[in-house]
Amino acid sequence: RASDSRSANLLLQSSFISPSSKGIYHFMPPLVKSLEKLTSLIDEKMKNICAQKVQMSMLSGKDIWSLSGRWDAFGKELITTNLGEAKHCLSPTHEEAVCKVLSQTFNKFLSYRHLPLRLYQTNTKFRNEPDPQRGLLRCREFLMNDLYTFDTTKKAAVETYNAVCNIYEEFFKELNIPVTKAQAGSGLIGGDFSHEYHILAGVGEDNIFICPDTGQAWNSECTNIEKKLDTLKQVDGIEVGHTFYLGKKYSKMFKTSFLTPDSKPVPCEMGCYGLGVTRILAACLEVLSTESGMRWPHKIAPYKVCLVLPKTGSKEFENGTAAVNNVFDKLQNYPLLKNDVIIDDTPKRSIGWKTKHANLIGYPLVIVFGKGLNSEEQYAEVIIQNPDQQLNFLLRSFIMQHFIFMYCA
Amino acid sequence: RASDSRSANLLLQSSFISPSSKGIYHFMPPLVKSLEKLTSLIDEKMKNICAQKVQMSMLSGKDIWSLSGRWDAFGKELITTNLGEAKHCLSPTHEEAVCKVLSQTFNKFLSYRHLPLRLYQTNTKFRNEPDPQRGLLRCREFLMNDLYTFDTTKKAAVETYNAVCNIYEEFFKELNIPVTKAQAGSGLIGGDFSHEYHILAGVGEDNIFICPDTGQAWNSECTNIEKKLDTLKQVDGIEVGHTFYLGKKYSKMFKTSFLTPDSKPVPCEMGCYGLGVTRILAACLEVLSTESGMRWPHKIAPYKVCLVLPKTGSKEFENGTAAVNNVFDKLQNYPLLKNDVIIDDTPKRSIGWKTKHANLIGYPLVIVFGKGLNSEEQYAEVIIQNPDQQLNFLLRSFIMQHFIFMYCA
Repeated sequence: RASDSRSANLLLQSSFISPSSKGIYHFMPPLVKSLEKLTSLIDEKMKNICAQKVQMSMLSGKDIWSLSGRWDAFGKELITTNLGEAKHCLSPTHEEAVCKVLSQTFNKFLSYRHLPLRLYQTNTKFRNEPDPQRGLLRCREFLMNDLYTFDTTKKAAVETYNAVCNIYEEFFKELNIPVTKAQAGSGLIGGDFSHEYHILAGVGEDNIFICPDTGQAWNSECTNIEKKLDTLKQVDGIEVGHTFYLGKKYSKMFKTSFLTPDSKPVPCEMGCYGLGVTRILAACLEVLSTESGMRWPHKIAPYKVCLVLPKTGSKEFENGTAAVNNVFDKLQNYPLLKNDVIIDDTPKRSIGWKTKHANLIGYPLVIVFGKGLNSEEQYAEVIIQNPDQQLNFLLRSFIMQHFIFMYCA
Repeated sequence: RASDSRSANLLLQSSFISPSSKGIYHFMPPLVKSLEKLTSLIDEKMKNICAQKVQMSMLSGKDIWSLSGRWDAFGKELITTNLGEAKHCLSPTHEEAVCKVLSQTFNKFLSYRHLPLRLYQTNTKFRNEPDPQRGLLRCREFLMNDLYTFDTTKKAAVETYNAVCNIYEEFFKELNIPVTKAQAGSGLIGGDFSHEYHILAGVGEDNIFICPDTGQAWNSECTNIEKKLDTLKQVDGIEVGHTFYLGKKYSKMFKTSFLTPDSKPVPCEMGCYGLGVTRILAACLEVLSTESGMRWPHKIAPYKVCLVLPKTGSKEFENGTAAVNNVFDKLQNYPLLKNDVIIDDTPKRSIGWKTKHANLIGYPLVIVFGKGLNSEEQYAEVIIQNPDQQLNFLLRSFIMQHFIFMYCA
C-alpha cells in the first residue's frame, strides 16, 4: 500500500498530533500538509510587501538578551540550555537578534536607499508556558511567523505598519475566518500602534470589548480609557496575531542604523509583527468544526478531495476502482487539486464506514463511488462539506463539466 | 526600493549567513531561498517512495532517551534544557521518538497491510559539537532530513533500504554533484546495511578508502576487513548522507509492532536514513566555487538569472531600464524561472562593478544591459557561469528564441 502514493496510507491521515511531552506535540502527516499550505499563504502575503525570508537561529546567546534586559523580564518563561561557554536560551522572539544581524552584517553600508527593509521567518519558537493547555492553542513549542521592519522615519514606519495590517487582513480573509482587530495596550512600547487580531470563540482566553455602534474593539488593557465599559459588548477571543510599532527602542540598543543622504548614522524606526501559525490552525478548527467532524478552511485542508472506493471484494469493487482511477487522474491534472486528492481504499471497510470517516476528517469534497456501478450506468455521490461558497461553485462546475455521470448531493 | 520585489534589495543578496554564537548561524535571504529549493527537491524524492512528512518536536523528554540508553551514550553532545518537570534535550535524531509515536498512536491498529510505512521530516537538529568549524560544515544547529522506515520482514526492509539508496543517488545526481557511497561500519547496529555518502573534497574530515579496480569504497572503520589497506586509494570526504538498517533494535524497545494476518503483534523491521541539508549546501559550494566567485548547483541557486542595469543616470540607463523590464517579464513567465530572476539596479555602481559582483555571487546566468543601448540597436551581453550543460543548452535556446538582439558570450 505504501507503494501507492494516491491512498497515502489512510491510517496516517486520521492522526493530526501526537503528544511528545506536556505542551509539546509531534505533527503528523495531514497537519504538516496543512501547516505547509498555511506557511505558503503567508509567504505570498509577505512577498506582496517585499519582505524577505530569513531563518534566525533558535539557540540564542545570553549577551543580546542581557543588553535588552529581557533575559530577566522573560524570567521563567525562557527555556535555557546547558550549551557551550555562555548561557543560551531557545528564542521565543527575535527583536534583539534581527537588530544585531543587521548592525553586524551591514554596519556602515545600510543607507536610506535600502529602507524600507523587511525581514520575516516562519519557524519554531519556544516558551515555557506554566500551564500549557488545549493542544496547539497554548503550547511550549510552536510555529510562529515573525516580521521585523526597518524605516527611515516615523511616518514611513506608520506606512509600513498599515501595509502589514492590510496583508494580515487579506490573509485572514483568504482563510475565510472572521477576525476582530482590537487596539492593544501601548504599555512599555510607546505610541498607539499596537493591535491584536482575535478569532472570537468561546474557548478564547482573552477578553475583547467591542463598541456595538462603530464595531471598534479594544483589549482589556485599553478599555475605560476611551469608552465606558458598560456601553461595550464583551466577547472571548483567541489571539492569533499582534502588530507593534517599536520606534527606536531596539535599534538604538543594537546600533541598527542607516546612513542619511549626508552620511549621518540614524537608528532605524522599527516595527514587529507576529502570526501564531499553529494557533491559527487550531483556532480555525475550533471555530469551524461541528459535531459531525472536523472542518478546515479549504485553502489549508490537508487534502481537498477524498475518493471513497467500494468495499474490497464487493460486486461494485472492480468497476468502482476503474472509475476512481479515471477521476483521480482527471482531478490531479487540475492545478487547484494537484497533490490534493486522496483515495480511501481501506481494506475490509464498508462504503458507509468510509463515508462517515471522510466526514469526520472533514475533506471539503468527498466523492463516493458506490451505488449501481456497472459498465452501462456509472454514477457516484458527491458530498460537499465545505463552508466556502466560492470553492463549492468551482467544484460543482468542474464536476458537471467532467463527470456528467455523477449526482451532486 | 523595497516596494520593487524584482530587485529584492540587492544588499541582502550578498549575505548568506550571519553568526549567532559559536557554531550557530542565522540564515540570510539567499541561503533560505536555496535551502527551500533543496528541501523541495528532497520532498519530491521522498514522494517517490511514498514517504510521508511529519514534524517531530525538537524538545524531547528524557524518558525515551533513558529507555534506549542514549541519554548517557550521547553524553556531552546532547544539548539539555531547564524545561518543565522532567529533563528535556534538543533532539539530535528521532529513532526513539518516531517509534514511540507509532506505538502510542496506532497501538493495536497497525497491521501488516499498513507496511511498508515511511515517515520523514526536514527540520532543525541540535548537537553540542565540541569543536564547531568551517561554517555550515560542522555546526551546533543545522537542518537535517531524516527518514524512518518500518517493514514486516528483513527482506522487505532490505528492499526499502535499496529504494532509499536509489533516491539518494538520484538526488545527488540532480544536484549534479558527484558522491561516493562508502560501506560503513556495522558497529552496534548489526547487519552489513550501513553506508555513508561522501562529497570528496580537500576540506573533508573523513577518510575514505577506494579500490582503484572496482570503485568500491569503505570508510575507515571498515578497511582491512575486506581489502588490504595498501591496495586502496585514500581520499578525504565530507559525509553528507548516512543509511542504516536497524532491524528490531528500537521497535522492540518501544513496542512498535504490527499485527500479522493471524493478529499476532510482531516488532517492525526498521531503517533510518539521514541527509545533512545545510551541510550538503555548504559542501556543494565548497566543491563548485572558484577563485572568481561562488558557484551553485543550478537547481538550488538562490536566483537563476541576474539582470544587470546600466548605471543610474547614465546615457544608457533609460533604454536599459525599458529592456530590463521587457526581459524580466518574459523570463518570469517561463515556469523554470518563476521567482528566479533578480535585477541589479544598485544605485551609483557601474556596470563593471555590478557584473563583477554578480560573478562573485554566482548567479548561473547574468545578462548585462550595457553596450550601445538605443532604440535602433539594442543588445545585451549574456554571461553563463554555470557548470550544468543541460541548463546552459536550455537557457541558450530560450535566449535565442526570445531575444535575438542579444549576444551570447
